[in-house]
Amino acid sequence: MHSLGELAARFGLELHGDPQLRVSRVATLSQATDGALSFYANSRYKKHLAATRATAVVIGPGDVSMCPVAALVSPNPYLAYARIASLMHPPAAPAAGIHPSAVVAATANVAASASIGPMCVIEEGAVVGERARIGPGCVVLAGARIGDDTRLMPRVTVYPSVSIGRRCLLHSGAVIGADGFGFAPDHGSWFKVPQLGSVRIGDDVEIGANTTIDRGAIGDTIVDEGAKLDNQIQVGHNVVIGAHTAIAACTGISGSTTIGRRCMVGGMVGFAGHLTIADDVTVTGCTLVSASIREAGSYSSGMPAVETRLWRRMVANLRRTVKRRDDGGTVQNGH
Amino acid sequence: MHSLGELAARFGLELHGDPQLRVSRVATLSQATDGALSFYANSRYKKHLAATRATAVVIGPGDVSMCPVAALVSPNPYLAYARIASLMHPPAAPAAGIHPSAVVAATANVAASASIGPMCVIEEGAVVGERARIGPGCVVLAGARIGDDTRLMPRVTVYPSVSIGRRCLLHSGAVIGADGFGFAPDHGSWFKVPQLGSVRIGDDVEIGANTTIDRGAIGDTIVDEGAKLDNQIQVGHNVVIGAHTAIAACTGISGSTTIGRRCMVGGMVGFAGHLTIADDVTVTGCTLVSASIREAGSYSSGMPAVETRLWRRMVANLRRTVKRRDDGGTVQNGH
Amino acid sequence: MHSLGELAARFGLELHGDPQLRVSRVATLSQATDGALSFYANSRYKKHLAATRATAVVIGPGDVSMCPVAALVSPNPYLAYARIASLMHPPAAPAAGIHPSAVVAATANVAASASIGPMCVIEEGAVVGERARIGPGCVVLAGARIGDDTRLMPRVTVYPSVSIGRRCLLHSGAVIGADGFGFAPDHGSWFKVPQLGSVRIGDDVEIGANTTIDRGAIGDTIVDEGAKLDNQIQVGHNVVIGAHTAIAACTGISGSTTIGRRCMVGGMVGFAGHLTIADDVTVTGCTLVSASIREAGSYSSGMPAVETRLWRRMVANLRRTVKRRDDGGTVQNGH
Repeated sequence: MHSLGELAARFGLELHGDPQLRVSRVATLSQATDGALSFYANSRYKKHLAATRATAVVIGPGDVSMCPVAALVSPNPYLAYARIASLMHPPAAPAAGIHPSAVVAATANVAASASIGPMCVIEEGAVVGERARIGPGCVVLAGARIGDDTRLMPRVTVYPSVSIGRRCLLHSGAVIGADGFGFAPDHGSWFKVPQLGSVRIGDDVEIGANTTIDRGAIGDTIVDEGAKLDNQIQVGHNVVIGAHTAIAACTGISGSTTIGRRCMVGGMVGFAGHLTIADDVTVTGCTLVSASIREAGSYSSGMPAVETRLWRRMVANLRRTVKRRDDGGTVQNGH
Repeated sequence: MHSLGELAARFGLELHGDPQLRVSRVATLSQATDGALSFYANSRYKKHLAATRATAVVIGPGDVSMCPVAALVSPNPYLAYARIASLMHPPAAPAAGIHPSAVVAATANVAASASIGPMCVIEEGAVVGERARIGPGCVVLAGARIGDDTRLMPRVTVYPSVSIGRRCLLHSGAVIGADGFGFAPDHGSWFKVPQLGSVRIGDDVEIGANTTIDRGAIGDTIVDEGAKLDNQIQVGHNVVIGAHTAIAACTGISGSTTIGRRCMVGGMVGFAGHLTIADDVTVTGCTLVSASIREAGSYSSGMPAVETRLWRRMVANLRRTVKRRDDGGTVQNGH
Repeated sequence: MHSLGELAARFGLELHGDPQLRVSRVATLSQATDGALSFYANSRYKKHLAATRATAVVIGPGDVSMCPVAALVSPNPYLAYARIASLMHPPAAPAAGIHPSAVVAATANVAASASIGPMCVIEEGAVVGERARIGPGCVVLAGARIGDDTRLMPRVTVYPSVSIGRRCLLHSGAVIGADGFGFAPDHGSWFKVPQLGSVRIGDDVEIGANTTIDRGAIGDTIVDEGAKLDNQIQVGHNVVIGAHTAIAACTGISGSTTIGRRCMVGGMVGFAGHLTIADDVTVTGCTLVSASIREAGSYSSGMPAVETRLWRRMVANLRRTVKRRDDGGTVQNGH
């Protein structure tokens, strides 16, 4: 239970309403009941704001006049909400120590304040930092390093010599440091090129469920501090992802591509290899990035759905422009 | 071994042939030998039907005249085949009980008729229903609920408080309830928005290998009864998937999108966030759904492959239509 | 430590420089220091070659004149480099034997020379071949076969009766043999079609992290010898992938499609089902293959990104070609 007065003071928010009112949980505007705190940051929910039964709403200064209940006012209500929600719902912290079922090599260096869950395997020379929490069924291979306060959710694999920074969060099924995809043609078959680099992940990085980040071929694959990766993302060998770049689910980044800082990449985007993407680039969902991007800005190639019948004709018309050129015409001189 | 007479009676099928004939297994039309049951439901296999050495074929009334062997006739031969195959090849059921290597919290509630495989971890307050089967290496975190007769194949992760219905089947590597992808911008970096909702999965849902379903930010992510999800699908936070909707592999659904009932979604489809998709919508493979779909029907934007040389010219021509408008013309008035 | 003379002799390379020089590791041209071996196979790195501080460089005959240091000359420098790197950096081989924490069925047949890691589960009737190495947390279900010298990295799942060849490498999170996606419509819901086939993987196949290969519905899903699959690839039931075909990450192959030998498939490619793809076909990244490909060659439909503002107009223009046809005109007769 927190009083609105206490929350306003702690987070530097302007309060419209009774500072004695108390909130014990967060809820959406439409589902909130007495004792719930909600937030308003998207005009599509204006109706829900008008009808909310929340005890208080975190809201921007321009919208506070529409708020039917107590208001905690912030220029960035979504951020203010996130800070309050983090205070009200702290993540559970397992007790320090190594579960008896875990297999930890004698030469592994596990901090006394760290927690190693059941069924974990920590190999020789691995390092697990202060207060790090390794969930059930994780495998940390030889010489890998897990930074202080980093959490691995269940069933994460960290390959040999991979280095993960502090305060990171890796979700279940993530695989960090598997071999990059490198083969040399050898008379009709493929000869495996040893993948001898590693992966270096900075501080405050989040990596989603079943995301894979391959080790470098010679040098390392790098994810810089504060980068946020969603689920089922594939990061090829020797990729560099700049600090504070956010990438949505199902995106794939081919080998040796460098993505700048503070980029925002939508879902299911494909990056070709050996590209350089500038800082502050936005790429919308389902786009193919096949060439380097030198300037900040927004880039797209995702084709929006239409009725299948129309789509077939759009495709036919696009093909026809080529056929006509084959007939000696061009789109221009055909007119 | 089942006699054709027994199968015809049990499944209400019309039999053309000797009711004493027996079948012991299923096989394709082309690979079937004596004692095998096959089915015919796709005219592309007409030649295989004519040449089949199966003992009997499940077939539709309109095709029975083409059947060179005994026929079990059904208006829906594929369904009839599936029912017979399920009878002839029941899934193996492990013995009830908890494997000694499993780690089950004292406060977990595991039905005596349930089976918990080796290396499983079942945390505090988790519930595992009657006859549920938890495969090797699964992790069921605190307070999660697994319904009666639900099967988890090996290495499935169920996050805290997730609820899974009855008679569900989750394949290996599935991750249910990881954090949604939510971050508030905070002066050039990202502040994590706590993901406080959960995931609710209805009865009779199948979830494919390495599919990920994120927990809600505040409310829950929902997969309704009878929905079928293929492998490597990503379901974002607060998504709702309607009853009996089927989604093919590699599709990604962004946060807060609602998909209707009985929809059929192809592979590698991308849904933007905050959309509403009507009931009975079909989306073909590799389509980007970037706006809500209000009416049942079929929708597409997947571009079919052509020779690379032609494709480059199609792209150049499409770009040219824009350049020309920059020069003051338009596709229309250019004519 | 290897002398250049020894390497030249062992791999049949022409040496330009002092045969007594020794190298102990590999490095990129730009990061190499004394004692490092590098290679030059891509003209984009010409400047790095000129400035390299490597002790020796593996290089082609046409480029050797540009090499400022000792040169090991090969017509295929990338292959020669890979062979030398494999010699200098052999993969670690764990000791033979079964870790005490592993659960191995009495009826499983594990070669004495094989290594079974901690937390593994090997079920009844499974076979693990000579010198095979099963990493921590792997699950090999009933009757599955792992060939001689095959390595499973941590947390791989092999379903019942799956057969994997010799000298294969499967990366963490791979799931081989989960049910194909098959359901028969049954009065508004779906009836599961039992997936009774298996998966057969040939010799010398590599399978990436979190890749999924489904078992066949009746017959088997097949990956032929020498095929190389990257991470997060989805292979549907009854697919056949020809020998020595290489497929990049995030590609999805729908059921019953057959891909030829020596094909090269880019990342995030989608294949529709029931197709036949010829030998020696190249498909570039983010392409949708919706029809069979009968001739070798390169095929594409990945749309390259442009500024979002321009892209919106390109899409509008493509739509307009259809609208105009609705008005009775066509692209052709409009001229």
